[in-house]
Amino acid sequence: MRLSRYFLPVLKENPAEAQIVSHRLMLRAGMIKQASAGIYSWLPLGYKVLRNIERIVHEEQIRAGHVPMLMPTVQSAELWRESGRYDAYGPEMLRIRDRHDRDMLFGPTNEELITDIFRAHVSSYKDLPLTLYHIQWKFRDEIRPRFGVMRGREFFMKDGYNFDLTKEDALHAYNRHLVSYIRTYERMGLQAIPMRADSGPIGGDDTHEFLVLADTGESEVFYDSAVTDIRLGNREINYDDVGQCRAVMEEFTALYARTDETHDEARFVEQVPAERQRRARGIEVGQIFYFGTKYSEPMGATVQGPDGKSVPVHMGSHGIGVSRLVGAIIEASHDDNGIIWPEGVTPFHCGIVNLKQGDEAADAACDGIYAALTALGLDPLYDDRKERAGGKFATMDLIGLPWRITVGPRGLKNGVVELTSRRSGESEELPPEAAVQKIAAIYAPDTGV
Amino acid sequence: MRLSRYFLPVLKENPAEAQIVSHRLMLRAGMIKQASAGIYSWLPLGYKVLRNIERIVHEEQIRAGHVPMLMPTVQSAELWRESGRYDAYGPEMLRIRDRHDRDMLFGPTNEELITDIFRAHVSSYKDLPLTLYHIQWKFRDEIRPRFGVMRGREFFMKDGYNFDLTKEDALHAYNRHLVSYIRTYERMGLQAIPMRADSGPIGGDDTHEFLVLADTGESEVFYDSAVTDIRLGNREINYDDVGQCRAVMEEFTALYARTDETHDEARFVEQVPAERQRRARGIEVGQIFYFGTKYSEPMGATVQGPDGKSVPVHMGSHGIGVSRLVGAIIEASHDDNGIIWPEGVTPFHCGIVNLKQGDEAADAACDGIYAALTALGLDPLYDDRKERAGGKFATMDLIGLPWRITVGPRGLKNGVVELTSRRSGESEELPPEAAVQKIAAIYAPDTGV
Repeated sequence: MRLSRYFLPVLKENPAEAQIVSHRLMLRAGMIKQASAGIYSWLPLGYKVLRNIERIVHEEQIRAGHVPMLMPTVQSAELWRESGRYDAYGPEMLRIRDRHDRDMLFGPTNEELITDIFRAHVSSYKDLPLTLYHIQWKFRDEIRPRFGVMRGREFFMKDGYNFDLTKEDALHAYNRHLVSYIRTYERMGLQAIPMRADSGPIGGDDTHEFLVLADTGESEVFYDSAVTDIRLGNREINYDDVGQCRAVMEEFTALYARTDETHDEARFVEQVPAERQRRARGIEVGQIFYFGTKYSEPMGATVQGPDGKSVPVHMGSHGIGVSRLVGAIIEASHDDNGIIWPEGVTPFHCGIVNLKQGDEAADAACDGIYAALTALGLDPLYDDRKERAGGKFATMDLIGLPWRITVGPRGLKNGVVELTSRRSGESEELPPEAAVQKIAAIYAPDTGV
Repeated sequence: MRLSRYFLPVLKENPAEAQIVSHRLMLRAGMIKQASAGIYSWLPLGYKVLRNIERIVHEEQIRAGHVPMLMPTVQSAELWRESGRYDAYGPEMLRIRDRHDRDMLFGPTNEELITDIFRAHVSSYKDLPLTLYHIQWKFRDEIRPRFGVMRGREFFMKDGYNFDLTKEDALHAYNRHLVSYIRTYERMGLQAIPMRADSGPIGGDDTHEFLVLADTGESEVFYDSAVTDIRLGNREINYDDVGQCRAVMEEFTALYARTDETHDEARFVEQVPAERQRRARGIEVGQIFYFGTKYSEPMGATVQGPDGKSVPVHMGSHGIGVSRLVGAIIEASHDDNGIIWPEGVTPFHCGIVNLKQGDEAADAACDGIYAALTALGLDPLYDDRKERAGGKFATMDLIGLPWRITVGPRGLKNGVVELTSRRSGESEELPPEAAVQKIAAIYAPDTGV
């Protein structure tokens, strides 16, 4: 993309309404614009990041054997009355009345709707196990929306639902989700620690939240610092392997890590060596639940078991906050000059800065680098505006592309351009072709993971 | 995907509520399930087609130089009061009141919101031309939703908005959209004829609707049959070339083609030779508008021109009915046995039918074909259930995959499998590797277009 043809309305000043750094930087980098309280338009740069996160979530869900579908945003109140949650949900549910005066709502979650689909179509244990998921816009009518997309009213979320014959099978689904979530976050450059949590209005006994450590997080967390040393990395995972998924789950959840909802101070102090006790803050970016037959029983979602008897299915639900992750990644990865995107989610793979737009050699070199990167399937952002170099660098730093190629007449006389890492700030001079190859090599592994 | 692990709830009986063939086939093929009146869940097979259509729309929009972004579904009523449309829109607008008693609405279209974004960030003619678009769920509270996703209440639509300094520039944007839309539809295997139409509540003078001819279409159309001979094909289009875009627009709109809204019988009879006069029905799958300063003037979306004077921008809006297209494609492409997907949008590239699940040679051959197709980046659906061949064939015909590879012990003894075209019904016997190569060749051009 050439910047002269793009829509990147960066702001020079810090917007007064933004209290936390991710909100401030998303506004300043031209990623979002508030449409109304807690509701945002995703401007082109923000939309690209949102789609990248969505793509990674899809890829990892499909890898784990889960089946994508899509439920609507507007739901009928009837199903929620059946589960008993319509009246219980409170004022955070956006209630709607249609032209025929029917009670509708903008879905905050989808347990009822998915259970209705299941019971209409599945009647035998032979069709299990089954995990369906979707990524759809949700609405929670927060009384005081704040922190930009981190606590907005309209938000983009992946929610998945497993249907299993037995509790044992459903716990495998739980573990499978835990493992696939860790891989999902790691691909985004995030460490999200599974912490024992409270199940809230979803219900059930077993639940873990995934928390990204950040000073601005709204949750207080307590953990054994050794938990931050554990990585999934590129391990081969067979998601059908019950033992392997359980072992990974145990590895990631054996050490003490809890939110304030479930924190047990006595146990914390007893179980964790003093030098490894951490009290910090975190941002919740996902949660998994096993809730057994909480919805299948009242809603009649049963299957015929191998013995011919009808039994309610065991279920769980599993969510990742896709739009919230955009903010969480920025909270975890930025500096005074702006955002620093991890390679896995960056809106453009690299920036190209032309130090002297209009200079024949500089223009030609930039065009060549742009064409070469594009031909390799990469997506560069070429700042081809007639602006001062300082302004171009500031914009690139603000929007946080992990790599920048700087092209100017002086370097070209020596046959070199400059390749700069946004994270380290380090630069090296090298021929244009070598810079292109280096960028290609950086992004090559991403497709193979 | 192995069918044993998928969720494909096909129906044996014809659902009573479906009046038209696409609705009937989408229900029977397990593509959708009604959630409430005019609101559907997209089951896994339907979701895949929806995503394929969305992808093609994105690719062609980006090719035309338009910039993707995303606006929210829930909007504040304020902006609609500014444009004067809040009261004018009528009961099809789903009006919502939030917990703070603020008037909100589920957006049926986005002229106001995009104009607000534009006026907040763009102030100079130097930032023009600019075309922003998004693909988002919309809601129109139809009094009698019907025909499944063809006339639902919650629907998925691409809507784009151009901002130009002059009427002349805006008309180029109009032509550019017309050309890119034709290419978009052709990639989906559809002929959609641009017809002069009425602008309705969007406003403006210039507007064309794109209509797919189908007996079940809700619009009456009148056209010169020669218009159906025109194809864009693989012509190179330079979307910056004003003359080329205008020439293509003229080529596609010179012959008589109008909906009943603008039909002029006297002119039709005079202008079109009798043997080429056609009166038929069509499904509207898109519409483009030029409406000048209708929104920019009341909402103050102005830029400073080259002469320093402030002028309202010239705008147009351009829509493609993404979810409706799923139905329209089926209306245009089916037979008594089910759907016939065009290769461009098919949910799976081919089906694999194992005639004797459990037979060692047949299972191994199917596994091999599945692995080979997958390794080539293709997405096959392998019916690995222990069902009779007749049932497997009926399912494959119903869900409409364009190609089927049939594998059985008898053929394998001679080293062959059967490759069958869904459209022609013709089969040929060939070695498994040759069948894989043939499927790969069929889909290869699609990526290069």
